[in-house]
Amino acid sequence: MPSDEHGPPPGGHGPAQERRPAPDAGLLSPVRAGTEAEAATSDLAYLTAMLDAEAALARAQARLGLVPAPAAEAITAAADADRFDLPGIARRARGSGNPVVPLVADLRALAGAAGEHVHKGATSQDIADTGAMLVAARARRVVLAHLDRALDALAGLAARYRDTPMPARTLGRQALPTTFGAKAAGWLMGCLEAREGLAAVLLPAQLGGPAGTLDAFGDRALDLVAAYAEETGLACPVLPWHTRRTPVARLAAALAVAAGALGKIATDVWLLAQSEVGEVAEAAGAGRGGSSSMPHKRNPALSALVRSAALQVPAQVQVILAAQAAPHERPAGEWHAEWQPLRECLRLTGGAAETAAELLDGLEVSTELMRADLDDLLDLLGDDPGTGAAAALVGQALDAYRRSRA
Amino acid sequence: MPSDEHGPPPGGHGPAQERRPAPDAGLLSPVRAGTEAEAATSDLAYLTAMLDAEAALARAQARLGLVPAPAAEAITAAADADRFDLPGIARRARGSGNPVVPLVADLRALAGAAGEHVHKGATSQDIADTGAMLVAARARRVVLAHLDRALDALAGLAARYRDTPMPARTLGRQALPTTFGAKAAGWLMGCLEAREGLAAVLLPAQLGGPAGTLDAFGDRALDLVAAYAEETGLACPVLPWHTRRTPVARLAAALAVAAGALGKIATDVWLLAQSEVGEVAEAAGAGRGGSSSMPHKRNPALSALVRSAALQVPAQVQVILAAQAAPHERPAGEWHAEWQPLRECLRLTGGAAETAAELLDGLEVSTELMRADLDDLLDLLGDDPGTGAAAALVGQALDAYRRSRA
Amino acid sequence: MPSDEHGPPPGGHGPAQERRPAPDAGLLSPVRAGTEAEAATSDLAYLTAMLDAEAALARAQARLGLVPAPAAEAITAAADADRFDLPGIARRARGSGNPVVPLVADLRALAGAAGEHVHKGATSQDIADTGAMLVAARARRVVLAHLDRALDALAGLAARYRDTPMPARTLGRQALPTTFGAKAAGWLMGCLEAREGLAAVLLPAQLGGPAGTLDAFGDRALDLVAAYAEETGLACPVLPWHTRRTPVARLAAALAVAAGALGKIATDVWLLAQSEVGEVAEAAGAGRGGSSSMPHKRNPALSALVRSAALQVPAQVQVILAAQAAPHERPAGEWHAEWQPLRECLRLTGGAAETAAELLDGLEVSTELMRADLDDLLDLLGDDPGTGAAAALVGQALDAYRRSRA
Amino acid sequence: MPSDEHGPPPGGHGPAQERRPAPDAGLLSPVRAGTEAEAATSDLAYLTAMLDAEAALARAQARLGLVPAPAAEAITAAADADRFDLPGIARRARGSGNPVVPLVADLRALAGAAGEHVHKGATSQDIADTGAMLVAARARRVVLAHLDRALDALAGLAARYRDTPMPARTLGRQALPTTFGAKAAGWLMGCLEAREGLAAVLLPAQLGGPAGTLDAFGDRALDLVAAYAEETGLACPVLPWHTRRTPVARLAAALAVAAGALGKIATDVWLLAQSEVGEVAEAAGAGRGGSSSMPHKRNPALSALVRSAALQVPAQVQVILAAQAAPHERPAGEWHAEWQPLRECLRLTGGAAETAAELLDGLEVSTELMRADLDDLLDLLGDDPGTGAAAALVGQALDAYRRSRA
Repeated sequence: MPSDEHGPPPGGHGPAQERRPAPDAGLLSPVRAGTEAEAATSDLAYLTAMLDAEAALARAQARLGLVPAPAAEAITAAADADRFDLPGIARRARGSGNPVVPLVADLRALAGAAGEHVHKGATSQDIADTGAMLVAARARRVVLAHLDRALDALAGLAARYRDTPMPARTLGRQALPTTFGAKAAGWLMGCLEAREGLAAVLLPAQLGGPAGTLDAFGDRALDLVAAYAEETGLACPVLPWHTRRTPVARLAAALAVAAGALGKIATDVWLLAQSEVGEVAEAAGAGRGGSSSMPHKRNPALSALVRSAALQVPAQVQVILAAQAAPHERPAGEWHAEWQPLRECLRLTGGAAETAAELLDGLEVSTELMRADLDDLLDLLGDDPGTGAAAALVGQALDAYRRSRA
Repeated sequence: MPSDEHGPPPGGHGPAQERRPAPDAGLLSPVRAGTEAEAATSDLAYLTAMLDAEAALARAQARLGLVPAPAAEAITAAADADRFDLPGIARRARGSGNPVVPLVADLRALAGAAGEHVHKGATSQDIADTGAMLVAARARRVVLAHLDRALDALAGLAARYRDTPMPARTLGRQALPTTFGAKAAGWLMGCLEAREGLAAVLLPAQLGGPAGTLDAFGDRALDLVAAYAEETGLACPVLPWHTRRTPVARLAAALAVAAGALGKIATDVWLLAQSEVGEVAEAAGAGRGGSSSMPHKRNPALSALVRSAALQVPAQVQVILAAQAAPHERPAGEWHAEWQPLRECLRLTGGAAETAAELLDGLEVSTELMRADLDDLLDLLGDDPGTGAAAALVGQALDAYRRSRA
Repeated sequence: MPSDEHGPPPGGHGPAQERRPAPDAGLLSPVRAGTEAEAATSDLAYLTAMLDAEAALARAQARLGLVPAPAAEAITAAADADRFDLPGIARRARGSGNPVVPLVADLRALAGAAGEHVHKGATSQDIADTGAMLVAARARRVVLAHLDRALDALAGLAARYRDTPMPARTLGRQALPTTFGAKAAGWLMGCLEAREGLAAVLLPAQLGGPAGTLDAFGDRALDLVAAYAEETGLACPVLPWHTRRTPVARLAAALAVAAGALGKIATDVWLLAQSEVGEVAEAAGAGRGGSSSMPHKRNPALSALVRSAALQVPAQVQVILAAQAAPHERPAGEWHAEWQPLRECLRLTGGAAETAAELLDGLEVSTELMRADLDDLLDLLGDDPGTGAAAALVGQALDAYRRSRA
Repeated sequence: MPSDEHGPPPGGHGPAQERRPAPDAGLLSPVRAGTEAEAATSDLAYLTAMLDAEAALARAQARLGLVPAPAAEAITAAADADRFDLPGIARRARGSGNPVVPLVADLRALAGAAGEHVHKGATSQDIADTGAMLVAARARRVVLAHLDRALDALAGLAARYRDTPMPARTLGRQALPTTFGAKAAGWLMGCLEAREGLAAVLLPAQLGGPAGTLDAFGDRALDLVAAYAEETGLACPVLPWHTRRTPVARLAAALAVAAGALGKIATDVWLLAQSEVGEVAEAAGAGRGGSSSMPHKRNPALSALVRSAALQVPAQVQVILAAQAAPHERPAGEWHAEWQPLRECLRLTGGAAETAAELLDGLEVSTELMRADLDDLLDLLGDDPGTGAAAALVGQALDAYRRSRA
């Protein structure tokens, strides 16, 4: 990157620029800083996925005899993200409005004689959308793994505290007795439903060519789409979906349901961890829950992070849902507006899942303080109405959990 | 609250009131004004549904012997929305934060001796949430019926114009040829996916009692929930979902996918109907597409209305998704914030579906102007690349449509 | 309203329809049900305001000699909302996409011979936008009055509890001492800033004609705009703003800042009113804070209502802000999408202000429980760090309040 | 890109990770990739600003004799972002929930003997919020400069095309004549209002200490806040605003108004640049407007990028506005949810302003095609209603522009 390209950086001069850290390394988003979801959704991950899409296209075309097999091999070999100037591609994307145009130019150059077979019959959106689905598929695996870890922890809490009574609270006021097991069972069902919903979202490859008609492929078009989908490992679409954004909308919505289920847990933990309640606490430990000014405090920091994700994801989903009403065969803005919000949905939810799993693994539960708070409530009530079907409800949730694991 | 505090309610009887129109009769929301979805989601529809929930609870309890059968019958008879002062209940809801508290008081009064059996073991949220699901179930039928009408029209367009060439447009620029059939096939698949997604959303009854433990029902609790669900006609929940808002979140998301699929059509129609394009037009007719100032104009007014819904629904979904992170066994605000946005999702999407069906039924297509625009493009291209697999893609979409109808 | 006007209601038949209540009387929005803001933003209020705009236009044109004075008087007399069929106009709005087209037709009919002078040189958007600004101006007065009542209450709390110590809480954990006066001073400043921001928003009349060029008025155009603005009582715009939505965007944002300031208060009250904290309580009283199932409970119901508004308004603002990017001289959807969200911003914020004023007027403060909680904290801290500059900060806020009142 | 550019990746070592590019270098956000706003809002910019806040605090305390002057100098010298491990701080932020805790630890270590005077009496939020305001102040300068460049271009367009007639279009249909100057005047006023609104937002320093009471500073507290504000160059707040988020909410709203004004321009350019309209075109040039598959196309790529920002910013604002209703003296999530959306508002709007300025500088206008389209309209109208007050309106806008420049 030549030093004069952007003018002097803010407050900097000379060689310092070369050491300039990333524009966005997660400093403002600790819920995903350093998490697996962050790595799975980085710009590098997107670049890799778009190159994977180009390589898959070449191989699929080779399978159908549309491209020489050695050319497909050469393209696959050249499609190595480490050989590309990522920030340069990002900047050159401004010229065409998307990063695929410069990426194709560079891939052609790197592929040598095979370069003429790169991106054959495809359009930028084919590669960008397929790349996004590949990233989504890889990031989803991460999200699901962390949800599974959270589910295991939740099932443990529900079972262990099945009969531990505590006050239920509505509008912040103690209402009637419940059990901590019942509360954990509710959390468990929320995460289980979110997991199932997310796992069920279909992630299709996209291939349509400039007009969405697969014009370059004649009567081999549908075969090619199938082969391309196979090479990518993604689902085979019924139709190109360049401006039919159901896959993106459904994915975003499923991520928001997951972020919400995790946010529900974090909200309850935050409230139960209040000084005046103290019925649960986040695990203590080096670098956890500290304050910059008050050594006596132990903050529900992980809860705050999970909640920060749950409060952001719905707005990102809004952008994606609104972008469905997109003009013609490719919009001038709606599609471009979708990319970063989808990434945020993936990495915020993934970060929240990893953070929530850590939170739940270390959650400390004070059955004594639950009992004490309950006694206050029972004094007020005059008699003990009991915890009703709480234990049976825990059983229902654990059954559902076990079925999902079978 | 003395009855004269706010003046007589709308619909009351002195001369002034008879002329007082509704607080919100759709004047600012023509996309749903006078539509079936509007009627299915009116305040009256919600009041009716909440009363249906109370009646269903009483009957379910009678089936289990928890309430005398005649009392359940008396409650069911008393639960007639026409006997209730709706605006009064709306205002009295301010006292408790929800309309069920005054509704229960009035229903008890109307039920006479059976009054003591009203709302037995339930909490406000049980009735409000079950009522909302009943409204959703009824409004969904309306939405699906209009989507079906739109689907039929779309299948007709896709078949009829399967081989009608026209320019595909990306970023507003003519790109390569496509067919109007292919465009209609994309619209069709979008609506089909939206229809399937919406129809698949589970709408469960809610019953948990004040603490979500069904405390009043002992070991009959799970049986009662099943009977209650049966009486309402809603799905039987695995657990109470008072603060596990998956059903609401999924419903809202599915509605937004539908609004988006409709908005995509309306966006294309608006653009194709531009003066300089003119490839389609909305049906002319009395009171359609007129301007207050320009008699020569024929506006794509229905498209504008559908688009107005598609631009609003995602924001309502945002509220609902964010409300998932709700405190304890009932939140102080998040739940309350959900009601009106869910109604807006239902009635805006329902209105958009009815409007889009009307739009598609009357859509006028100019194959001549499509041909003329295409010729301009072919001049620029120098040769005719053809429409590729467009016809095959139409076939794919029509097959999917036929399977869905089978 | 004739019984056949709406077609059969969902599942209903016969005379019941005549008594059918409003489609939306606030049943799902208790934060504004029966409030002054609700009345100021009803469909009737909008209809009245649009008629006021038509009448103002006629009078302004009469002042310039463009319309005979008696005709302007006749139009003003005819522009009486009670003479119009509001639900009918709402439904007929579907034909043109906005309610002004049928409104103008009906006004012309009612104005008799003066009818030809109705809406002269104007376009629908001129009347709808000016009407919306008139409603906004009227509703703003209501919002400001309730904010003032809240400000007075807050100033009282800040002064009275200037030296009342209590724990400050961060992430839900007791941190260090503060005072309830300092907390109230923060609330006060928030409302004061919100009030100032809202009062400062310019609400201009809109007049541009079909193309935004005031084509019908030749060199009298700018004079006419000035006269029209005077007749409406609104600000005179530098340019027509039909698709330059700054006034609407700024108004919506200012309302959201107000809703947020009120929501901050409600959030703190809800948390301080928790059973385990109990440092404040909402006023008891008939019909306030009750539960449908638990007589022992006293819920922070008003706080929940205010919070429900604070959680909804930002999403409505999102729609309005996004609608700024609107096509040409009038968009096909973006403008139409703005109407209902703007009304929701006005009536939710207005309802929240009225509710918050009631909440603050009746707020019960337990200095004993504040002291007890503080003692727990001081035990943990080991010594008392004091409340620092809390009293001085209260002084700063009260000074600002007094200056604003001067 | 040298291999040591980012330091070791999260949790990894060894050769593969050392080459790992940035998590987010703008690949998915071309509207801001490589722009000045991106640099001004990078993680490095935030780290620098937080260190500036710590140094300003030390110097302010030295001015009041609360800290030895040499210690303040040593802290200022140590507060050099290049000496900090940014990704490491981002990851360690997960422990406490915010990056200031690890930053303070590292700054203390680097400051040697002066380390004990670092962060004296402050809390994390003081530094994070002040840092955010410093970034905002620096990024605002960038945004305003690009808005000014856009304003100059717009004033040029309005003046040059003051009398160039073209069709006005409503709902996509040609309505009546306007002028391109009048259209540019509307764009100009939108940007002018946005510029004024953004420039007027007060950006205050934040200092309150752990409880917001400035407890560590006794009767020097208010003096210290004033000195601290001076040292940062930010406005002096009336009260600490840790949970009174007016400054953030107003800033975000003003940015959204700017993004909307730019989005309006981009929307019109996209539509006017359609193949069938062609009245304007984005500048051609190397790497501009190209397609990956269609050499004949010239895309309005810059318009698409600007629109992508205008469609995203409102959703980010939603998060910020909703976060106002935040618990107590520091929330567990609402505050944390604000950071990334505020950055997105700044860099998307800044990127959009830079992109729009480039777009407007190079905009090509075809008065011939405007004339041809107008002739079609006049044929339809039968006679020429003229362009009314269009020229006078251009004059109004140019006067406002000139006054703003005076």
